[in-house]
Amino acid sequence: MSTTPTIPGSRRVTTGELGVPFREVTLTNGEQLHLYDTNGPQGHDVTKGLPPLRKAWIARRGPGENLTQMHYARRGIITEEMRFVAIREGCAPEFVRDEIAVGRAILPANINHPESEPMIIGRNFLVKVNSNIGNSAIGSSIPEEVEKLTWSVKWGADTVMDLSTGKQIHETREAIIRNSPVPIGTVPIYQALEKVKGRPEKLDIEVFLETLHEQAEQGVDYFTIHAGVLLRYIPLTAKRVTGIVSRGGSIMAKWCLSHHKENFLYTHFDRICALMKRYDVSFSLGDGLRPGCIADANDAAQFGELITLGELTKLAWEQDVQVMIEGPGHVPIHKIKENMDLQLKHCHEAPFYTLGPLTTDIAPGYDHITSAIGAAIIGSHGTAMLCYVTPKEHLGLPDKEDVKQGMIAYKIAAHAADLAKGHPGAQDRDDALSKARFEFRWEDQFNLAMDPEIARQYHDATLPADAAKTAHFCSMCGPKFCSMEITQQVRDMAASEAAAAAKTGMDEKSKEFVEKGAEIYSAPAK
Amino acid sequence: MSTTPTIPGSRRVTTGELGVPFREVTLTNGEQLHLYDTNGPQGHDVTKGLPPLRKAWIARRGPGENLTQMHYARRGIITEEMRFVAIREGCAPEFVRDEIAVGRAILPANINHPESEPMIIGRNFLVKVNSNIGNSAIGSSIPEEVEKLTWSVKWGADTVMDLSTGKQIHETREAIIRNSPVPIGTVPIYQALEKVKGRPEKLDIEVFLETLHEQAEQGVDYFTIHAGVLLRYIPLTAKRVTGIVSRGGSIMAKWCLSHHKENFLYTHFDRICALMKRYDVSFSLGDGLRPGCIADANDAAQFGELITLGELTKLAWEQDVQVMIEGPGHVPIHKIKENMDLQLKHCHEAPFYTLGPLTTDIAPGYDHITSAIGAAIIGSHGTAMLCYVTPKEHLGLPDKEDVKQGMIAYKIAAHAADLAKGHPGAQDRDDALSKARFEFRWEDQFNLAMDPEIARQYHDATLPADAAKTAHFCSMCGPKFCSMEITQQVRDMAASEAAAAAKTGMDEKSKEFVEKGAEIYSAPAK
Repeated sequence: MSTTPTIPGSRRVTTGELGVPFREVTLTNGEQLHLYDTNGPQGHDVTKGLPPLRKAWIARRGPGENLTQMHYARRGIITEEMRFVAIREGCAPEFVRDEIAVGRAILPANINHPESEPMIIGRNFLVKVNSNIGNSAIGSSIPEEVEKLTWSVKWGADTVMDLSTGKQIHETREAIIRNSPVPIGTVPIYQALEKVKGRPEKLDIEVFLETLHEQAEQGVDYFTIHAGVLLRYIPLTAKRVTGIVSRGGSIMAKWCLSHHKENFLYTHFDRICALMKRYDVSFSLGDGLRPGCIADANDAAQFGELITLGELTKLAWEQDVQVMIEGPGHVPIHKIKENMDLQLKHCHEAPFYTLGPLTTDIAPGYDHITSAIGAAIIGSHGTAMLCYVTPKEHLGLPDKEDVKQGMIAYKIAAHAADLAKGHPGAQDRDDALSKARFEFRWEDQFNLAMDPEIARQYHDATLPADAAKTAHFCSMCGPKFCSMEITQQVRDMAASEAAAAAKTGMDEKSKEFVEKGAEIYSAPAK
Repeated sequence: MSTTPTIPGSRRVTTGELGVPFREVTLTNGEQLHLYDTNGPQGHDVTKGLPPLRKAWIARRGPGENLTQMHYARRGIITEEMRFVAIREGCAPEFVRDEIAVGRAILPANINHPESEPMIIGRNFLVKVNSNIGNSAIGSSIPEEVEKLTWSVKWGADTVMDLSTGKQIHETREAIIRNSPVPIGTVPIYQALEKVKGRPEKLDIEVFLETLHEQAEQGVDYFTIHAGVLLRYIPLTAKRVTGIVSRGGSIMAKWCLSHHKENFLYTHFDRICALMKRYDVSFSLGDGLRPGCIADANDAAQFGELITLGELTKLAWEQDVQVMIEGPGHVPIHKIKENMDLQLKHCHEAPFYTLGPLTTDIAPGYDHITSAIGAAIIGSHGTAMLCYVTPKEHLGLPDKEDVKQGMIAYKIAAHAADLAKGHPGAQDRDDALSKARFEFRWEDQFNLAMDPEIARQYHDATLPADAAKTAHFCSMCGPKFCSMEITQQVRDMAASEAAAAAKTGMDEKSKEFVEKGAEIYSAPAK
C-alpha cells in the first residue's frame, strides 16, 4: 500500500495488486472511512505524464481487431479493468462484467491511455461527474488546461472532456491525456472543423475519420459524435426559442442543409464503429438537438433524435463498441423524468449522460445551481453520469474557481442521487459526518466534508480559537443555548428513566420504553 | 405611479390606488417585463421606518376581538390586503379570499405592522422564500441586522425571520419590523427563555404569553411555536443519530422531561390562539422534531409530531387564526415527496413551509446547494414557502455575502418549482431571457438575470469591451464558431426552402414543412 497526500485531513491509499485508490479519512475516534478517489498518483512530473498503470494488462491481452471491454465481457472475460472497478465500487467483478456485456454500463478505457484508473459509468454504480475543460479561440494555454484537469480530479471529476477548439488542439490534448488518471472525452468534430478552416459544409467522412484516428491514437477514451442529427429533424427546430444550441449539432445541421443530404456521421456509422473498436473508444452519442431553454424542452426534435440514438446504439453494440447517450440541457423539473424514461426505452438501457439539466433560464452566473437541481433529480431517476455546469455557463470561460464551484455542486448532486437510489454504502459518509456533528467533533466534520478547507474556514470565521473545535457548542447558538447539548441531556434523562423503571421491577414497561419510546409517556387526551 | 431605483437595469414601480409594487425591466427591443418585487419603498430614513402603507386600511376595519384575514375571508369580506395580493399574483381577489378562507393559504399581516406590503403563502400562488437573520449570544449589532433585512429583500426575500437570541432582542426586533416591507416571523420561545435566564425548566405559559403579547404588540406577523413536541414523542428521538436539532424543539423537550408533563404550548393552545387572533399573528407550527440528518429523516418522531400539528391546525382554525406548518430539515431525495403527501393529508392542506430540505449531510459550506435541490423538489410538489439555508449553515453565522448566496439559491429553487407547477406567467421571464440570449442581446440578458451584477461581471471577465455586448458571438465559442449564429442560418435556410417550395406551386408540401417540419426532409431508410 502506497500513500500520497491529497485533500487535507485525508490521504490517498492504494490497495491490492491492482493498486485501486481510495481516499482514507481517519477520524479522531479512530474510525476510518475509505472514500472513492479520483485524484490519481500525486507528485509526478507533468512533462513526463503519469505512470502507465494499465500498460501490462493491455499488453497481456495482445493485439486484435476488437479490443473493447464490451467485447471481452460478452466473451465471459473479466479484465483487470473490471476487477479494478469492482473493488472501487464495492461489488462483484461478475456484476461489472454483466453490466458491460448487456450495455447497461461502459468502462471507457482506450488502450492508448494506459495512465487511466479504470472507472465505470452505469446506473447500477455510483453516479459519476464529468468536468469540461479546453481552450477556445479566445484565451488559455496548455499548462492552464493541464492545471484545470488536475484541479478537476482533485474535486472529484470522474471523467474530463477536452473541448478545445482553438490553436494547439493536438498538443493540448496530448498534455491532458498523458496527465489524466480519469478517462478523457472529446468532440472530434471540433478538430475536424479546424481542418476544413471552420467551414462546416467542407466536412466529410474522410476528414472526420482521420480526426478520429488521430485522437484514438492519442488515447481519447470517448467521443461525442452527433450522428443523430438527421436531416428530417432539423426543420423541427426552426420554431424553437433558441434553435440548436449544441455546437456539434449546429455544425451537422448546417452540413445537412448545405448538401441537402443525410448526416454523414449517420450514413457512415459502421465505419466509425470499426475504427473505435480497435482502440476501445466509447461512444457518447451526442444530443445535437438538445433544448437550449425551458421553452424548447422535450420537443419533437429532441425526442426524434433520441430515437435515432437508440438505433445507433444497437448498431454500435453489433460491433461490441461501448455506448452512452447524451441528454439535455434545459428542462423544467416536471419534464425531467420523461427524459429518463424515454432514454431507457429508446436507447435500450445504455447509460445516460446528461448536461444538468438546468431547471430555469433566469440565473446566468448561478447555472451550477440551476442545473445541480436538475442533475440531482435526473440522477435519482437513473442517469449514470452528470456533465457539470460552471457559474460562467452562458457568460464566459470558466477559470479554476469556476471549475471548483461546478465540481462541488455536481458532486453534491451525484451523491444526493446515490442516496436517493439507496446505493449500498453511500450513506456511510453522511452518517459519519452527522455523528461527528452531534458529538461536536469539529475536526472530523471538516475532514469528512466535501471541501474541508472551506468548512474549516467558515467555522473559523466566527470562532477562530482552537478551543472552539473541541467545545460543546458552536457560533449558531452560542455556549449557553445549544440544541445538540440539550438533546444529549434528553437522551441521558430518557436512559435514566428507563433504568429507574427497570429497578422498580417495571421490566416490561421499561423494555417497552426503550424499544418503542412512546407508551410510558402517553399523555392524557386533551 | 411612483418610481424608485432598485436592482440595476430595472426600476420599482407601484400601480393603482393600493400601490402594488413591481420591478419593471425595459428591454432594448422596447418590451417590458413586470417582475414580482419585494424591495419595498427605497430611500427612507431607517431611524423613522417605512411609511405605514396599511394603516388606513386597518383603521377603517376598526377594532374587534378577531382581526385575522381568515376571519374576514370566511365572512366573505375581501380586504385591501387580499386585493393587493391578487394584483401582485395576477389572480382574482375572490380566489385569494377563497384560499385564505379554507386555510389553504395565509396572508400574514399583523395589524401592528402596517409597513408591510401584503403577500400570500399557499401552494396555488408563487412559491415564497424566507430569509433568517438575527444576532446570537456571539456577535452582530442592530444596524447590522437591519442591513441584513434590507439586503435580504433586495435579493427577493418574501418574509424574514428574526431569530435573535442575544442581548437587545426587543430593540433589534423593533428596528427590523419598522423597516420591513415583508412579514416578520419570530420564534418567541427564544425570548421567553431569555426571560427565565436560559433555563428551559423555568418556562411556563404565563411567561410565554407575556412574550407573545410583547411581540404581537410590536407587529410580528407570524410566530413559530413548537406546540407539537409532545411528551410521548420525545423518547422516539433517543436513538436518532442527531437527536433533536431544533432549538425550540429541544427547549420544549427539556421542559417536558423536567416536569414530566405535557408541553404547555399544547395544553394551553387555545389561549395562544385567543391572543394571536386579536393582532392577526399567523401560526408557523414548528417542527421541533425535524430530522437533523439523512439517517433520521421521515421517522416516527417526525411524523408523530406532524399529526399533532394537524390537530392544532384545526384548533387554530376554530378561532380563525391563520396557520402554516413547518417541515424538514434533512431528507434524501426519495423521501421528500412523502413529507409533502403526509403534510397535506394530516394538516388539512394548510401551507407547508420547509427548511430546505438538505439532500445530503456531507457538504458543510455548500448547504445552500444541498438544500436548494431539496427545496426545488418539495416546492414542485406543493410546498408554499421555502426557508433558505446559507453556505454557513452548520458552521457559523451568515454574513451579508452568505445571505445573498442563500437567497439566490432559494429564489432559483422557488422559480424552478413555479415552472414545474406550471404557474401562469412563471415562464415569461425564462422565455424573455432565452430570446435575448438567442438574439445576442447581452444587456437584456444581464437585466433579466436574477443577479444582473454578477452576470455582467462574469461576461466581462472574458470579453470586457463594450462592443462584445452587441457582438453576435460570445467567449464560449469565439467569433468564428457560434452555434447560435449557425442556428440563425439554419432558420433562414429553412425559411427560404419553404418559400421556394411555395413558389413552385408545392403549397401543401410547403405548408407541411412549415407546420410540421419533418416530411419534406424525410430521408431514405438507412
